[in-house]
Amino acid sequence: MGDHSMASTPQESYEALIARVQEVATLQSCAGVLHWDRETYMPPRGAAHRAGQLAALAGLAHEKFTDPRLGELLAAVEGTDVVAEPESDAAVNARELRRAYDRATKLPRELVEEIARVTSLAHGEWVDARRRADFRIFRPWLEKIVALKQQEADCYGHEGSRYDALLEDYEPGATTAWLEGVFGPLRDALVPLLEAIKGAPAEPDVSILARSYPVDRQELLGRVAAAAFGFDFQAGRLDTVAHPFCSGIGPGDTRLTTRYNERDFGDAFFSIVHECGHGLYDQGLPADHWGTPRGQAISLGIHESQSRLWENLVGRSLPFWRYFFPIACHVFPEALGDVSLGTFYFSINDVRPSFIRVDADEVTYNLHIILRFELEQALLSGELAAADVPGAWNERFTAMFGITPANDAEGCLQDVHWSGGGIAYFPTYALGNLNAAQLFAAAREAIPDLDEQFARGTFGDLLAWLRENIHSQGMVHRPPQLIQIVTGKPLSHEPLMAHLRAKFKPLYGL
Amino acid sequence: MGDHSMASTPQESYEALIARVQEVATLQSCAGVLHWDRETYMPPRGAAHRAGQLAALAGLAHEKFTDPRLGELLAAVEGTDVVAEPESDAAVNARELRRAYDRATKLPRELVEEIARVTSLAHGEWVDARRRADFRIFRPWLEKIVALKQQEADCYGHEGSRYDALLEDYEPGATTAWLEGVFGPLRDALVPLLEAIKGAPAEPDVSILARSYPVDRQELLGRVAAAAFGFDFQAGRLDTVAHPFCSGIGPGDTRLTTRYNERDFGDAFFSIVHECGHGLYDQGLPADHWGTPRGQAISLGIHESQSRLWENLVGRSLPFWRYFFPIACHVFPEALGDVSLGTFYFSINDVRPSFIRVDADEVTYNLHIILRFELEQALLSGELAAADVPGAWNERFTAMFGITPANDAEGCLQDVHWSGGGIAYFPTYALGNLNAAQLFAAAREAIPDLDEQFARGTFGDLLAWLRENIHSQGMVHRPPQLIQIVTGKPLSHEPLMAHLRAKFKPLYGL
Repeated sequence: MGDHSMASTPQESYEALIARVQEVATLQSCAGVLHWDRETYMPPRGAAHRAGQLAALAGLAHEKFTDPRLGELLAAVEGTDVVAEPESDAAVNARELRRAYDRATKLPRELVEEIARVTSLAHGEWVDARRRADFRIFRPWLEKIVALKQQEADCYGHEGSRYDALLEDYEPGATTAWLEGVFGPLRDALVPLLEAIKGAPAEPDVSILARSYPVDRQELLGRVAAAAFGFDFQAGRLDTVAHPFCSGIGPGDTRLTTRYNERDFGDAFFSIVHECGHGLYDQGLPADHWGTPRGQAISLGIHESQSRLWENLVGRSLPFWRYFFPIACHVFPEALGDVSLGTFYFSINDVRPSFIRVDADEVTYNLHIILRFELEQALLSGELAAADVPGAWNERFTAMFGITPANDAEGCLQDVHWSGGGIAYFPTYALGNLNAAQLFAAAREAIPDLDEQFARGTFGDLLAWLRENIHSQGMVHRPPQLIQIVTGKPLSHEPLMAHLRAKFKPLYGL
Repeated sequence: MGDHSMASTPQESYEALIARVQEVATLQSCAGVLHWDRETYMPPRGAAHRAGQLAALAGLAHEKFTDPRLGELLAAVEGTDVVAEPESDAAVNARELRRAYDRATKLPRELVEEIARVTSLAHGEWVDARRRADFRIFRPWLEKIVALKQQEADCYGHEGSRYDALLEDYEPGATTAWLEGVFGPLRDALVPLLEAIKGAPAEPDVSILARSYPVDRQELLGRVAAAAFGFDFQAGRLDTVAHPFCSGIGPGDTRLTTRYNERDFGDAFFSIVHECGHGLYDQGLPADHWGTPRGQAISLGIHESQSRLWENLVGRSLPFWRYFFPIACHVFPEALGDVSLGTFYFSINDVRPSFIRVDADEVTYNLHIILRFELEQALLSGELAAADVPGAWNERFTAMFGITPANDAEGCLQDVHWSGGGIAYFPTYALGNLNAAQLFAAAREAIPDLDEQFARGTFGDLLAWLRENIHSQGMVHRPPQLIQIVTGKPLSHEPLMAHLRAKFKPLYGL
């Protein structure tokens, strides 16, 4: 981490730039450990001190990344031979650092620290509010967070839409208008499919998933699945939290989390497979480029495509369960001994309106996202006050799904994201579903016997395809470009709808 | 964490100084979380990345603490009204910051980062070497560490003894000569007591401690004891590691660790009580002064007095077991159902030469320290090469204890300290024993019915006495001064020897 302040050639400037950027990434990765620890093992009374630690690290990382000297080094690299080849490591790094530097230098350090401090405290309040199903506990914190995110959006600058300004953090290049252009046709196609399923004669027996599945054996089964998919437990972990996530701390250290419910087979299992998909991406990023854009995940929408691909396209597929159902029966003989593969497969693919996004099926899931996408825009523009969120949530939810949350815990308090400042984050989940289906269709073309491989418990060809086409690429391309290159087409709702129709119409006898 | 660069009055300078010092402490406390995580939950392949994280944090903290502006602020405070009252918070902070600043500014950042990097890697090599009982794996790392610590000592400067220069980090004001003056009479008094015990007719039945004690119930019993002593588990944790330690991360976050052996009752139990003693000190430090000397532990020798006091003076005492033995019998009815209190009490106070320091009894323990104290001086002066450590260790050990380690794991590889750069750390363990006995004698004078309280399971008066006299004091006094103030006498080997004679002579029928 030398300074190389005396850098005089473009190559020396580039090396000095990278050293500085990696120092910032190291501080952020220290914060990653502290975040993970906060969710998993930190004692309750440590929350205030942890907020101070995270604020200090965020402030310091921001200060170092926005140091004018870093901007000078970047400028000394741009337009030189070092970055002449557009998809070279150096060109990718310079391009993405320019984007990030220009954004970061628009934020004052005080705002960065205040957001880190407030969101760290807000997290505990959200946990408490959710446990008590009482939005009033969380309301003042949501107010503070919305105000801070409005300030943040205004610092970035925008052409009328604060939402656009924040989206850029999660999905570079995405705009509210573009999302509406993708989500609109998706909703228009989902609603009739859902209506058809609601009216279908067939119905799965979901009660088998609510039998007794002892937690320690759920954990074992989840570990077996993750290891079968290729997750390296020598370079990763699995722990228990309130709201599952995956933390890619650095090379050799990728951490999955989940939560267990003895009376719900799917809750932990599919969240482990989901987080494992994220983890496989992190474990597949080029370690040599760690701490630079060339070694980083391209966007949340692509990250989520990896989790959704493994969770839904693999983990909820019939070929996978041809292999895995006998293993599950062996682990849970009491619960599954009298269940057929077909019955089980239908039960884990139950489609029906429900309150909790993370438990939603493949058909209704994106409708949950569209609701949040709309509410967040209203919150950020100021049309909707934080205090009015529960009412607005329930009203829209009822209109969309035909059912009404009984309390805030199964309504607007269910998700961790807002407490962490993650406004404009939700749309990337729907993008993840769209990307996953389109990428999986391409993988299937490249590996024609994918179903037979899954049925044998072989996932290495799929992982290798993802490693080559997605994971190893880091930020070489922008998300829409990557989808175009890998699948030969721009992103569309059609592959996802084709998958849903091909899967659910036969299941529901339509 | 504002800069206050425009500070113009001494009070403003003081506030700016404290803000900077607390920022440094925050970075160090982030490193504390990363260290704890490395020992408890980090996946094996994360070691290299973790070394980089810890090196960056150590380098950054060092850079910030040695910033000339901090020195200017300190100078602008010294000699002013702000620090006129010698034992005021500000005076204590200025005095101790001057000492620390003068030391830290003598070390180049490159050396600080290199020590952090090498010791972080060396840790994993030590774990491996110890597991394989093969010193050759660790040898090159010990060589590097000794060379780095020699450099460090030379940077600090000394009058011929590099050991003095390093001691200052752990026990401010202690010198090699002073330690020899305390340890000499101690050894001279210990050896005849040990000889008498070795020749005594009575012998405890230690086989009862090697019965089956299921690990989950050992953990439960340890938690019950720690909670009874006053450890706040809402502000702390207990986890499992290879080498037990206590990590005081910050207000509300103090973490104990231990290790379990189903066939050894004492291994986990007394290490939990020991670490709990450290944890009670950390939980009792004044939170308002966190990050400044006024809120910090005074020295390792005083810190260790707290762990030893709870472990030995309380945890191995007959009054404590009058209260706790029925609880232990309830938790382990199979192992302890046929054992009397007297038999049990004798078994946990078995005195005999043994290989492993942390398992050593109260009588032999300090001889283990004296051996390390001698070897470390030879290593640091260059008289002893790292490669010759196993031979030198075994030779001295045999001369001192009459038994010879069968391999390096039960010899020179047993302790984690050297792998972490902790040379000159061991003497503070013996100081801890001496301080503990002298402080406990004073507590007993202040609370005449202490034994009766223990037998009732009441430890609050003792904890309150420690809180008032030790914990809440932070660094107000230097260690010898604190002992003088609280006990009315300078530190001496006599209280420890009086305790050992009063306890072990009757036990062994002498």
